[in-house]
Amino acid sequence: MTLTKSNVNVEAQAIEAKKASKQLMVLSKEERNEALLHLADVLERDYETILEANEKDLENGRKKDFTEAFMDRLSLSKERIADFAQGLRDVAKLEDPTGQVLSDWTLENGLQVEKVTVPLGVIGMIYEARPNVTVDATGLALKSGNAIILKGGSNAINSNQAIVEVMHKGLEETKIPKEAVQFIASTDREATNQLFTMKEHVDVLIPRGGGKLIQAVVENATVPVLETGVGNCHIYVDKAADVEKAINILVNAKTDRPAVCNAAETLIVHKEWLAENSTALITALKENDIQVHGDDHVLEVIPNAVPAGEEDWANEYLSTDIAVKAVDDLTDAIAHIETYGTKHSEAIVTEDEKAAKTFLALVDAAALYHNASTRFTDGGALGFGAEIGISTQKLHARGPMGLPALTTVKFLMKGTGQIR
Amino acid sequence: MTLTKSNVNVEAQAIEAKKASKQLMVLSKEERNEALLHLADVLERDYETILEANEKDLENGRKKDFTEAFMDRLSLSKERIADFAQGLRDVAKLEDPTGQVLSDWTLENGLQVEKVTVPLGVIGMIYEARPNVTVDATGLALKSGNAIILKGGSNAINSNQAIVEVMHKGLEETKIPKEAVQFIASTDREATNQLFTMKEHVDVLIPRGGGKLIQAVVENATVPVLETGVGNCHIYVDKAADVEKAINILVNAKTDRPAVCNAAETLIVHKEWLAENSTALITALKENDIQVHGDDHVLEVIPNAVPAGEEDWANEYLSTDIAVKAVDDLTDAIAHIETYGTKHSEAIVTEDEKAAKTFLALVDAAALYHNASTRFTDGGALGFGAEIGISTQKLHARGPMGLPALTTVKFLMKGTGQIR
Repeated sequence: MTLTKSNVNVEAQAIEAKKASKQLMVLSKEERNEALLHLADVLERDYETILEANEKDLENGRKKDFTEAFMDRLSLSKERIADFAQGLRDVAKLEDPTGQVLSDWTLENGLQVEKVTVPLGVIGMIYEARPNVTVDATGLALKSGNAIILKGGSNAINSNQAIVEVMHKGLEETKIPKEAVQFIASTDREATNQLFTMKEHVDVLIPRGGGKLIQAVVENATVPVLETGVGNCHIYVDKAADVEKAINILVNAKTDRPAVCNAAETLIVHKEWLAENSTALITALKENDIQVHGDDHVLEVIPNAVPAGEEDWANEYLSTDIAVKAVDDLTDAIAHIETYGTKHSEAIVTEDEKAAKTFLALVDAAALYHNASTRFTDGGALGFGAEIGISTQKLHARGPMGLPALTTVKFLMKGTGQIR
Repeated sequence: MTLTKSNVNVEAQAIEAKKASKQLMVLSKEERNEALLHLADVLERDYETILEANEKDLENGRKKDFTEAFMDRLSLSKERIADFAQGLRDVAKLEDPTGQVLSDWTLENGLQVEKVTVPLGVIGMIYEARPNVTVDATGLALKSGNAIILKGGSNAINSNQAIVEVMHKGLEETKIPKEAVQFIASTDREATNQLFTMKEHVDVLIPRGGGKLIQAVVENATVPVLETGVGNCHIYVDKAADVEKAINILVNAKTDRPAVCNAAETLIVHKEWLAENSTALITALKENDIQVHGDDHVLEVIPNAVPAGEEDWANEYLSTDIAVKAVDDLTDAIAHIETYGTKHSEAIVTEDEKAAKTFLALVDAAALYHNASTRFTDGGALGFGAEIGISTQKLHARGPMGLPALTTVKFLMKGTGQIR
């Protein structure tokens, strides 16, 4: 299969998506949910088509000598496709985020005002070589009445295209027009860049992936972006921290799933606490194979620590490495987070309520923790049902984003001839 | 007074604002309200200082031969300054938009979750030569716990600077650090452009003014923007429109305040309605000095109409001129709005409930009206208490924005050692 710039026309696709989004807006929630359930069935039915295409991507991946973790994320199976289908069925069950009347009132002149949630319109999804996102994102978009344009990583292009073809075939048997799901079948960067600036046709861009991908979208887009996910999260162990809580939280936040964005990347530790509890800390670090990159003070206390440089404070290791910084007080801890944090999730461990209160008030991040692991910043863990991603921006949506993040509002005014 | 690039350092100002925003965050709402009331008193007390500076701007304006309307907006008086002060007092009375718990729940493991509103941090306000915005915007920012960086139009620079100096003096007698209000005392475009890209220090940019100003901000900013205000609003008079309602709404939306963004700029009229009611319409247009720019069909029906070109359909006249387009049906009307509308306010006049329902569902705009004037898209008219502007974007805030648009959220998690 040869994909070149000449056989994709992103603008035409975006125009089709916009048109389809208008048709989606007048469907009932039942019609949208039925379509999702049908897509789930079709994915399970046609799984072999998808696995054949996936094999091509895997073969290319083996040639390119990708890491085992990368190949694992790329690799599909009958069971994984069944999981995708189950995901769609779960989304179908969720409450409809559109058509919700957020507030309504009547003016003195009798004009009725309703503030109601409506779909955003067209979502542009830019993601890495993870075929599961193709299904997930489509499910969330259609559930919330939006059309979607998918641009996945080139190394999964065959799998993604097969998934979309199967879904298109499925949509033909539903009320949702298949043009509501557009797939950019190109590995050409220009195709993606076109998507970034089509303000007329695309209502929002959602980049899902590593920091570089997100940065590229933010810098080049004029279409509004929902930024997700980079997490340089800190655990601050205060002078008054309980030893057991501190160590449990640190180990959990660092090692439970080191590659996710809510994992801890830096331990900030009060010097007095460190002096008193170094033995317990050192044992825990050793038992859990945590490699410390420490500042000068830490190097003196923790054996086998390597020196931390400027890049360590800013680094998302996504491994069991951790940067450790010793501080004199809460103020220094907050200042360090202010300088290096990514406004994702930040935790303080302390029995001092006043210190906790100050930390929660002053640290600028989506999620602030007192005596708990940063790992809870997650739509699933918090009971959101579905998660679009974790927003690290302040406008529109912050923190774990559920379906409501894919909606906007309209003010509907019903009158009998009112004028001002 | 000579202002050159060399004597302003926008980055240093932004850093000061960020620092001050942290201090603001720990003040109580009472302390912030007291500061607003004190600023009101100080403005009234020192009005002469402001009037002296204003005289310089007026003199420059007269030299540059500005329009009467422009000079009127620029011109201050003791009474106008008293109005500014009253505005601050009114804002002080409003409900605090921060510290509101939007939702809270407890996970099975006992972790307490609270989603609470907090200030955005630092607001960059870019506006035209309207000294009232200097006071208004400062009041709204401080009320909501934000620091603000003001960049007003060059032609009001002396007035704005005097207002800020008076407010700074006032703030010294309050708990709010005066660094929370920064004024860019430069007419240099580069100074403004610097502000557009300081993502680290500035949390949001709010452009307030005409389309060109807003466009310049959107295109050059990497800091998130709250887009406000351009309104190319349409009144669609359907086949089944009541004559009296249609004419009252049209005249009101066009002539009540032609220069504001919720005024109507285009009448879309069903050909059958026009054929039946041309006499009444022509009389109303004449009585109200409304100049019609019509399509070919309209030119045949309405005397003294001038031909409308492509630019008329897209034009915000902000005068008593109106573009008039005749259509065959609702679908054509919606398509016209889709092509030329700015997603601000759109109205249908009809007694046909089904047509109204379709219009409200399919037209993509912040405010949709059935049988009422578009003039109600206004924070004041809708009872919002204060209005930051009218958002024509879909993310974060859409339509008239009250104080909540100047906040974001934090998830606060309180635990007893919970891990995943």
